[in-house]
Amino acid sequence: MATMKALVYRGVQDFGIEERPKPEVASPTDAVIKLAKTTICGTDLHILKGDVPTVAHGRILGHEGLGIVESIGTGVSSFKPGDRVIISCISSCATCSFCKRSMPSHCTSGGWILGNTIDGTQAEFVRIPHADSSLYKVPKGVDESALVMISDILPTALECGTLNGKVQPGNSVAVVGSGPIGLSALMTAQLYSPSKVIMIDMDENRLEVAKNLGATHTVVSGPDAAKQVMEITDGAGVDTAIEAVGVPATFELCQDIIGVGGTIANVGVHGTKADLHLENLWDKNIAITTRLVDAVTSPMLIKLLESGKIDARVLATHTYKFSNIDQAYSSFAAAAANKALKVIIDFEQ
Amino acid sequence: MATMKALVYRGVQDFGIEERPKPEVASPTDAVIKLAKTTICGTDLHILKGDVPTVAHGRILGHEGLGIVESIGTGVSSFKPGDRVIISCISSCATCSFCKRSMPSHCTSGGWILGNTIDGTQAEFVRIPHADSSLYKVPKGVDESALVMISDILPTALECGTLNGKVQPGNSVAVVGSGPIGLSALMTAQLYSPSKVIMIDMDENRLEVAKNLGATHTVVSGPDAAKQVMEITDGAGVDTAIEAVGVPATFELCQDIIGVGGTIANVGVHGTKADLHLENLWDKNIAITTRLVDAVTSPMLIKLLESGKIDARVLATHTYKFSNIDQAYSSFAAAAANKALKVIIDFEQ
Amino acid sequence: MATMKALVYRGVQDFGIEERPKPEVASPTDAVIKLAKTTICGTDLHILKGDVPTVAHGRILGHEGLGIVESIGTGVSSFKPGDRVIISCISSCATCSFCKRSMPSHCTSGGWILGNTIDGTQAEFVRIPHADSSLYKVPKGVDESALVMISDILPTALECGTLNGKVQPGNSVAVVGSGPIGLSALMTAQLYSPSKVIMIDMDENRLEVAKNLGATHTVVSGPDAAKQVMEITDGAGVDTAIEAVGVPATFELCQDIIGVGGTIANVGVHGTKADLHLENLWDKNIAITTRLVDAVTSPMLIKLLESGKIDARVLATHTYKFSNIDQAYSSFAAAAANKALKVIIDFEQ
Amino acid sequence: MATMKALVYRGVQDFGIEERPKPEVASPTDAVIKLAKTTICGTDLHILKGDVPTVAHGRILGHEGLGIVESIGTGVSSFKPGDRVIISCISSCATCSFCKRSMPSHCTSGGWILGNTIDGTQAEFVRIPHADSSLYKVPKGVDESALVMISDILPTALECGTLNGKVQPGNSVAVVGSGPIGLSALMTAQLYSPSKVIMIDMDENRLEVAKNLGATHTVVSGPDAAKQVMEITDGAGVDTAIEAVGVPATFELCQDIIGVGGTIANVGVHGTKADLHLENLWDKNIAITTRLVDAVTSPMLIKLLESGKIDARVLATHTYKFSNIDQAYSSFAAAAANKALKVIIDFEQ
Repeated sequence: MATMKALVYRGVQDFGIEERPKPEVASPTDAVIKLAKTTICGTDLHILKGDVPTVAHGRILGHEGLGIVESIGTGVSSFKPGDRVIISCISSCATCSFCKRSMPSHCTSGGWILGNTIDGTQAEFVRIPHADSSLYKVPKGVDESALVMISDILPTALECGTLNGKVQPGNSVAVVGSGPIGLSALMTAQLYSPSKVIMIDMDENRLEVAKNLGATHTVVSGPDAAKQVMEITDGAGVDTAIEAVGVPATFELCQDIIGVGGTIANVGVHGTKADLHLENLWDKNIAITTRLVDAVTSPMLIKLLESGKIDARVLATHTYKFSNIDQAYSSFAAAAANKALKVIIDFEQ
Repeated sequence: MATMKALVYRGVQDFGIEERPKPEVASPTDAVIKLAKTTICGTDLHILKGDVPTVAHGRILGHEGLGIVESIGTGVSSFKPGDRVIISCISSCATCSFCKRSMPSHCTSGGWILGNTIDGTQAEFVRIPHADSSLYKVPKGVDESALVMISDILPTALECGTLNGKVQPGNSVAVVGSGPIGLSALMTAQLYSPSKVIMIDMDENRLEVAKNLGATHTVVSGPDAAKQVMEITDGAGVDTAIEAVGVPATFELCQDIIGVGGTIANVGVHGTKADLHLENLWDKNIAITTRLVDAVTSPMLIKLLESGKIDARVLATHTYKFSNIDQAYSSFAAAAANKALKVIIDFEQ
Repeated sequence: MATMKALVYRGVQDFGIEERPKPEVASPTDAVIKLAKTTICGTDLHILKGDVPTVAHGRILGHEGLGIVESIGTGVSSFKPGDRVIISCISSCATCSFCKRSMPSHCTSGGWILGNTIDGTQAEFVRIPHADSSLYKVPKGVDESALVMISDILPTALECGTLNGKVQPGNSVAVVGSGPIGLSALMTAQLYSPSKVIMIDMDENRLEVAKNLGATHTVVSGPDAAKQVMEITDGAGVDTAIEAVGVPATFELCQDIIGVGGTIANVGVHGTKADLHLENLWDKNIAITTRLVDAVTSPMLIKLLESGKIDARVLATHTYKFSNIDQAYSSFAAAAANKALKVIIDFEQ
Repeated sequence: MATMKALVYRGVQDFGIEERPKPEVASPTDAVIKLAKTTICGTDLHILKGDVPTVAHGRILGHEGLGIVESIGTGVSSFKPGDRVIISCISSCATCSFCKRSMPSHCTSGGWILGNTIDGTQAEFVRIPHADSSLYKVPKGVDESALVMISDILPTALECGTLNGKVQPGNSVAVVGSGPIGLSALMTAQLYSPSKVIMIDMDENRLEVAKNLGATHTVVSGPDAAKQVMEITDGAGVDTAIEAVGVPATFELCQDIIGVGGTIANVGVHGTKADLHLENLWDKNIAITTRLVDAVTSPMLIKLLESGKIDARVLATHTYKFSNIDQAYSSFAAAAANKALKVIIDFEQ
């Protein structure tokens, strides 16, 4: 029986590379992909902390990546062995009621399953269900480290942040949190030409990166942050507030800075409730949105990377061999100290 | 000096008819209206409880009504003395940045000012600022008690509930609260042909009224309500939940029954914060909206009343002479006991 | 080898029932359906006239129907033998770029292929490609003759007419042509509560049917029609004009009656160009739309039939056994004379 | 009686500067503006050819400009004498049914009236009706020649071209015609980050300007143009085709290059009908839109100029004193030969 190396979650803060059976096509709509590149998501760190109960001990981690089609089921028609493909973090059957409503995040036989309820992409090979609607062909001439950002972080920022937040030309946007997701929100927000993008974080290095990526203003987190945003917006508050952290304090900051008619677009993963100040907000004509990435904008994002409208290479700050994936995790876990945004694990190096 | 009779707020639970100077045109864009009909809003009851600090002692109450143009300023071009007009609860200058963004609720020189920061409509005459964009001609052949509902309750239900809630053909809607606003939400929701409209209230009489107005299901408030809604929707939850009460418990019920991809449209006036269960909602692709009525749908609603698509007469359950307005208030304050929805005060009777 | 009876197109005005091989699953995503009901479309009459060059001699006709799943391929997961299903006229792979953009009418391996480029539904059995996304389960308790209208005519009217035409509460709508498609446009337009629906046709019987189905006004085609529509709309023209015939004269009538800010939604199949009077229309803020039915609203329509919001039974005016399908064609070809709308061919009778 | 100098239209190709009475406030909502800058529109050239029958002999020309408030009526509340303001080509009462529907182009007492049915801006002073909703304050720190483009050309390009054309990130856009309007369409289209913008014109100099302004491709007009666009789009056609010329040939070119699901946004002023090839387009899911500029995006555009997201200075290629306005007309009439885009007439020079 063919085997492969894979990063396995064994329990809280316990993980490592193990030898595992190489996956095979199990259903007519499956494809098996040989990984070329993968990366690590903040969610992977949450899994290691034991915060994600759906992840069983023994699960191969990872839901992002790019690779080469190794084999396909008889029902796969869009891909053939040898194709270089981007793997979406969201598996979509394309036919259930949620997929039909453009919400494959809630696909009844898919959604976020890779590295969660089935084995994932931090391995030499991965089995991808519903391959026809969960993979994308790698376009020619685009940096593949940039393309790995199509797996999760770019559609997350675009769909949950920019689109849900209804960013429009001339508007003002605040992004609370300037980690990889917040910076991706900054990048995708600029597709719609807002006049002001205010980035908020406690890490001044990340705010510096944000400036370089086009932020018009930066605000250091603190008791004073809301006041600063109100000053920057001449007292009006912002049209769009993107929450890219996932704790009550940052969500509540969004409520303090949202302007009349504005939208708070939540991107952060929350583990607890927050206060909603309806006594202030009930008459302010605002919207609050939540969303798990659906990855339905992946084709659009691929075109934007092809045409250079988004330069996602800047997000890939570090690269490691797969054999050194533990170092990649260490680096990413202490991202601020390492000035790390996304770390690439390269199987072909 | 000409005088008139007017209902004056004197302090907490203290109000009565007084003799007051008849209002006059004070600005070129004003009109003075002789009232034919007015009505009482739940907000008026809140004012009497002292809950609305912007209302000064001595203020003439009321922000709804229909009457005859008595006089106009030199800048008024759409109306002339003698015209029968509906008075909008929202005064709109039509030119400030909020009015231009279709949010006259936040008009910098208007919004909800009648019976709040300036004298209102529960009087023989009222001065209406920005008359051209705050009055509507009474169409021929439509019951005037029904037309009074254009002043506030129908646009509130349509804009804050039905439109913000994105009610669509075939969808499921729950309305939490079946008072006049909730029932108006039921009526306006049906303009978009939802398959299911579930009305929730503690008062079985109002649920009976809801049934007669087209509710497909009714649920009596209680610990069991969310469970019942989930059963009615085969476990999916509703596409639209309209909050028409204004307390944390009902807002939180909306969170329990909202389906993936759904919208919670808040209509209720809230005096305190509520818990927002982001730990359950962050990945459910939902939206929560708030809004103070903008009354921008008034022209649409007038056409719908004209064509019989909405029959708002059913909301006008009781009628009183202006001299008996204290009885009208008593009746409305104990609405459930009196099977009252909206009470009409008729100046022409 | 198993055979079946099927209606075969042999050439211009030449067709008849023949014995043909029973179809089998040819691809993992196929299903074979045993027909219970089918119907005839105006397009079938065009095929018989030789107007549709993609239809080869020897083709089994028909793209509408309802039946029982006979067998499925290994890649079909939503249906099993014995399920009663509605067959969509549009086959959708669900994964090509057009399907992802909600335009399966242009699916690169589907679209309108049944009874066109592959064998169709006017037969005892039919093979359906991409079964998971091209079939719908028959809901309990709904008349099956009504459900056959989900195959083509109802989504055509809803998508190409009502939705493209942006029908809104209180608005005015004119439908040019009151045949089955025009009447379906009338039915689906009413889902959005327009104040006025003006039906236009040369056949007074059909206008009578339209009245019974809720038309507020009817206009007999003729040199005077535009003038009458302008009078009905107080000189404003209509907000939505739905073209449901497919000849230059009716499309040009739409241009004469469209109001400022309105939409002309083309539903008719056109064989020739029309004049577009840009010299009149360039500054009228109008939109003109075209569309081949995508059938993406089928799930919504099924819910509407289930809840009784649309009663499509009225469209099924005549029923024939499959052995008498030639009579069904004759009846439908002389629809006006026979007061026929849609004719049902019932295989189970 | 105070007089001023003004450019007067006397008849076909006959115009010149005359001494005229200085305009005064005639209605409470009027303002009189002392011009600082004005410019010439293609429409002015049409007037001189006698193509615009609404323009009487003796009319003062011009509908664009920027100046200083000289005096205001008693009903004007947003401006005061001394304010520097941009004059919109569209006068809006803000209260009629068209203004309420965001279509002030069809305002029942406004619309395009300046330099058309009332005296215009090519004069030392101009009377502006409905001043509160037809003027905009000049923001600090923005080049005033750029701000004059807010009067007409930028909202025309944005509203009639980019917004009607639904330009989206990653999409392909073709602009037929690369004069000032076409180039403005190019600038405003880029607010939405399309991947491809193909500019088409017969003048290679203008195509060169287009390249410098961000066009990704240029195509020289000719029998081959459609073929080239199809090649650039890999045979798919464009998502948006913007017609910026106004003759049948260019409108028909748009039909040849529009892709499935695309939109043809007409900006050009047409004097004659065009052929609409419904036999090709009926099933292509396209939209065709027309619009007279409503100028409702002026506040957004001012913010975009302030923040540098649009640099409109490049459009102002030539500057003349008012006393030399005849030279400005000559230069603009032979725009291609003079490499002219917009010519500024500066009253303060």
